[in-house]
Amino acid sequence: MRYAVGGGKRLRGFLVLETAALFGLPPERAISAAAAVECLHAYSLVHDDLPCMDDDDLRRGQPTVHVKWDEATAVLAGDALQTLAFELLCDPDLGSAETRIALVRGLAVASGAEGMVLGQALDIAAESASAPLTLDQITRLQAGKTGALIRWSAEAGAVIAGADAAPLRAYATALGLAFQIADDILDETGDEAQTGKRLHKDADAGKATFVSLLGLEGARQRACDLVAEAESHLAPYGDTAKTLIDAARFVIARDS
Amino acid sequence: MRYAVGGGKRLRGFLVLETAALFGLPPERAISAAAAVECLHAYSLVHDDLPCMDDDDLRRGQPTVHVKWDEATAVLAGDALQTLAFELLCDPDLGSAETRIALVRGLAVASGAEGMVLGQALDIAAESASAPLTLDQITRLQAGKTGALIRWSAEAGAVIAGADAAPLRAYATALGLAFQIADDILDETGDEAQTGKRLHKDADAGKATFVSLLGLEGARQRACDLVAEAESHLAPYGDTAKTLIDAARFVIARDS
Repeated sequence: MRYAVGGGKRLRGFLVLETAALFGLPPERAISAAAAVECLHAYSLVHDDLPCMDDDDLRRGQPTVHVKWDEATAVLAGDALQTLAFELLCDPDLGSAETRIALVRGLAVASGAEGMVLGQALDIAAESASAPLTLDQITRLQAGKTGALIRWSAEAGAVIAGADAAPLRAYATALGLAFQIADDILDETGDEAQTGKRLHKDADAGKATFVSLLGLEGARQRACDLVAEAESHLAPYGDTAKTLIDAARFVIARDS
Repeated sequence: MRYAVGGGKRLRGFLVLETAALFGLPPERAISAAAAVECLHAYSLVHDDLPCMDDDDLRRGQPTVHVKWDEATAVLAGDALQTLAFELLCDPDLGSAETRIALVRGLAVASGAEGMVLGQALDIAAESASAPLTLDQITRLQAGKTGALIRWSAEAGAVIAGADAAPLRAYATALGLAFQIADDILDETGDEAQTGKRLHKDADAGKATFVSLLGLEGARQRACDLVAEAESHLAPYGDTAKTLIDAARFVIARDS
């Protein structure tokens, strides 16, 4: 792959750069959008790790921000990272003002109260629900929590290029769900030193996951099917989409 | 005044609508920008009120979000309010895509790590500083914490109208500082039932304020001088600026 994904950790920025490359755009035309979505994703991790949220002390192999500094710093750092994401999308290298407003609007919708934040709120609500979530409910939760931002990332290259984003949207929808299923499999079978974060938290909390609902083999099969579906949506791009196909395969093969 | 400021509580949205009116724009041309800055300001209050930040239980006469619901909800509600602010600035009623990108960029700079969040971080650092802040330090802190957003609000009308924002920028810089001095005076002399928030917190914590540094009378005089300065910057607009002059006078006369 041309850019290091770094485990699953830089997937969003990678998708921005790779989908831009699909339309012949050099990295400098898309790098601010890639940086923006990584800032947005990083803010969500810093806030999700807070004691009042998921209460995690380890992230990417490092102490989380509130452990290393303090909670007020983690709240403010997350807030400023979100702001920086939108500032980065104003970079003229991304294209016309119309293009940049489309990116701003898309990122806001993907990450706000009907996207990522909704997914996180549903996830927190699930912890105190009387019954574990069903497969439909958990699929909807994850479509918001991780899916919306992955979709924005994969569409960004087409938006910057002024091209039709529909095939990439379909690719990213399947990829996002495969990514989350792979995360649940890693949470069950992975190694904390490799992943750089605490594992088995959902299972220990009695929360439904794709693994608890489908079984380990069922979850693996579903992830494989989704990757095949994701690949099929890239057919219009022929060989130029090879890196995006590799990325989809990597998402379910990764160990971190 | 044409729009209710509601104590000092809706000052930012009011400034957007009134500066737009200065250039003959009807409220519907500016309302999304007014709503955006109110969302941005509300997010900052919800996060600032958290136990790990200012730990306030009363705001606008109501229990704060983490008291009424819980801390996770307050973090997420603040996050989503910030996102909504940027989504609102994509509204085509605000003007061309160039205009809207200018508003997005300006709001991001005003509210991010070199604006409002910096001011809040300096404020928190001041709590554990070995010596109280000097007048220069506290002026710089407030220029970020409250000044940057007030300035963006007053410039917004000119940006939407495609007019020179320099006089309004100068007006807002003086107004923002007067507003903060008036806040410090209210914190010393105000009534909790009227203001709808806890008072005397800074003095009780031994933190420097404009009142502790200038004395009550000195602070009042400084605020009056700043309001006169703010008014002088509106001279180019003649009588059409009457409401903005009234607003500046109200800022130091308010009791909430």
